[in-house]
Amino acid sequence: MTENHGVGGSIPPLGTNFFKELRDYGWPSVSSALFGFLSPDDLAAIHRNGKRVPADVLKSCGAAVARIGRGEQLLDPASIAAYLELHIEQGPVMMARDLPTAVVTGIRGCIRHRSVRCRGEAGHSGAVPRWLRRDALFATAELISNIDEHWRVLLERGLDLVVTCGIIGTNPDDHSMSRIPGDVTFSFEVRSQNMDTLEAFYHLMQTECRQIGNSRKVQFEFDRRVLSAPARMDEGWVKRLQDVSSSLGLPTESIQSGAGHDAAYFLTPEFPRE
Amino acid sequence: MTENHGVGGSIPPLGTNFFKELRDYGWPSVSSALFGFLSPDDLAAIHRNGKRVPADVLKSCGAAVARIGRGEQLLDPASIAAYLELHIEQGPVMMARDLPTAVVTGIRGCIRHRSVRCRGEAGHSGAVPRWLRRDALFATAELISNIDEHWRVLLERGLDLVVTCGIIGTNPDDHSMSRIPGDVTFSFEVRSQNMDTLEAFYHLMQTECRQIGNSRKVQFEFDRRVLSAPARMDEGWVKRLQDVSSSLGLPTESIQSGAGHDAAYFLTPEFPRE
Repeated sequence: MTENHGVGGSIPPLGTNFFKELRDYGWPSVSSALFGFLSPDDLAAIHRNGKRVPADVLKSCGAAVARIGRGEQLLDPASIAAYLELHIEQGPVMMARDLPTAVVTGIRGCIRHRSVRCRGEAGHSGAVPRWLRRDALFATAELISNIDEHWRVLLERGLDLVVTCGIIGTNPDDHSMSRIPGDVTFSFEVRSQNMDTLEAFYHLMQTECRQIGNSRKVQFEFDRRVLSAPARMDEGWVKRLQDVSSSLGLPTESIQSGAGHDAAYFLTPEFPRE
Repeated sequence: MTENHGVGGSIPPLGTNFFKELRDYGWPSVSSALFGFLSPDDLAAIHRNGKRVPADVLKSCGAAVARIGRGEQLLDPASIAAYLELHIEQGPVMMARDLPTAVVTGIRGCIRHRSVRCRGEAGHSGAVPRWLRRDALFATAELISNIDEHWRVLLERGLDLVVTCGIIGTNPDDHSMSRIPGDVTFSFEVRSQNMDTLEAFYHLMQTECRQIGNSRKVQFEFDRRVLSAPARMDEGWVKRLQDVSSSLGLPTESIQSGAGHDAAYFLTPEFPRE
């Protein structure tokens, strides 16, 4: 349920495909456009499958792309009484706990790189001994393994953290079964409900990159860092929803949202963004 | 220098492009066709870039593809007095030791999989906690890191060994920055001058796959294993070449060939192949 006062017909109706296509770009939330958090770089980001850039998608739906590109606020947060977002769970936790409904109290933030590139040196797989190799894949495997181990240890200490490298690939124009890979590209993402945890883990990852870079004579190159801060839901609304659940005989349990949602932008108009 | 008696004009002249195109398929040696070591599977192997299959390349050069496919020997090894192969070094060793020439005494064999597939389960990167993940990339990174560490330890013990994963990739139709990868494909290759070392390391890799498969709830699936046995050069010819080098004032040092070469097939007509 959204109660928005004063925006009237200025936002055209958007179909499901619009959201799906924009989501493919890996944005934290479509609502970022409404609150002036999209930069010209965001609008021109090339899709991983070479599809349309976000500016084209927005334009085809009648969005005010020029204003969005200038970072204008298209919607005044003060004009909104409440933004309630009903969502299916995107994880396995509610199913495992047998909860038909739950009330979200917070949304994880994240730090991301769409593309981290490890540059080493290609070479013949039979002819270059280990000590002379600069294998970009073995370096990346060591990095990911170390990151996973840090993640495991920090979870045991009770930190909220998920870490994912969703995409990896050697260069198809250059790679071969009998060629030491000199070029590996991968994505990196860390999410947490805690801003300090996000920054600390990011620092840890970069430290690992430098150390592995030195020991294996490779270089890790990063594209633009994208930050979405964690969001905490309004306590009054959480209480109201729990009371309603209780009166309907539904569980009143709370849950954290691991995935990003539009609601995060409605709640934190000062939402930090890089 | 090749002295071949009795084959006359039965082999058409082959251009550089022919060898380059066939080499792209990752064959241990083009000569495998001459000695009946190519199977119909080899001839129909799809190139990683979707180019022509080997049968088409061979046919376009006038090769007897039907006979090759039946595993017929097109050349009788007994009819060949000697096969001498002059080659530029494909590694950095001669350069490092400042050797203008060297005599090869052995050629490394190898065991390969063009494609090992790690199957886990895809999921939302923010919503699935670590203990419920079946991340195919984190599993593959652990495998490659462990393999690298075994390699390091075995080198210190003096074994001859090189290990390479030249190709890796998540599935482009399915992967995304915010999606836990459920599907990673990579190539695997181990080379050694020693057949026992090859088999032992291969066994070690498979053991790692099973253990990581169990602990991370993923499965490693292997395509056809391809074996090329190590080859030892003829001692008489090695001696002759060293004597000639000496008389010309060139170094008489010997070197091992890390890369596979046609000479391996001429020397070992019983060449094991899977």
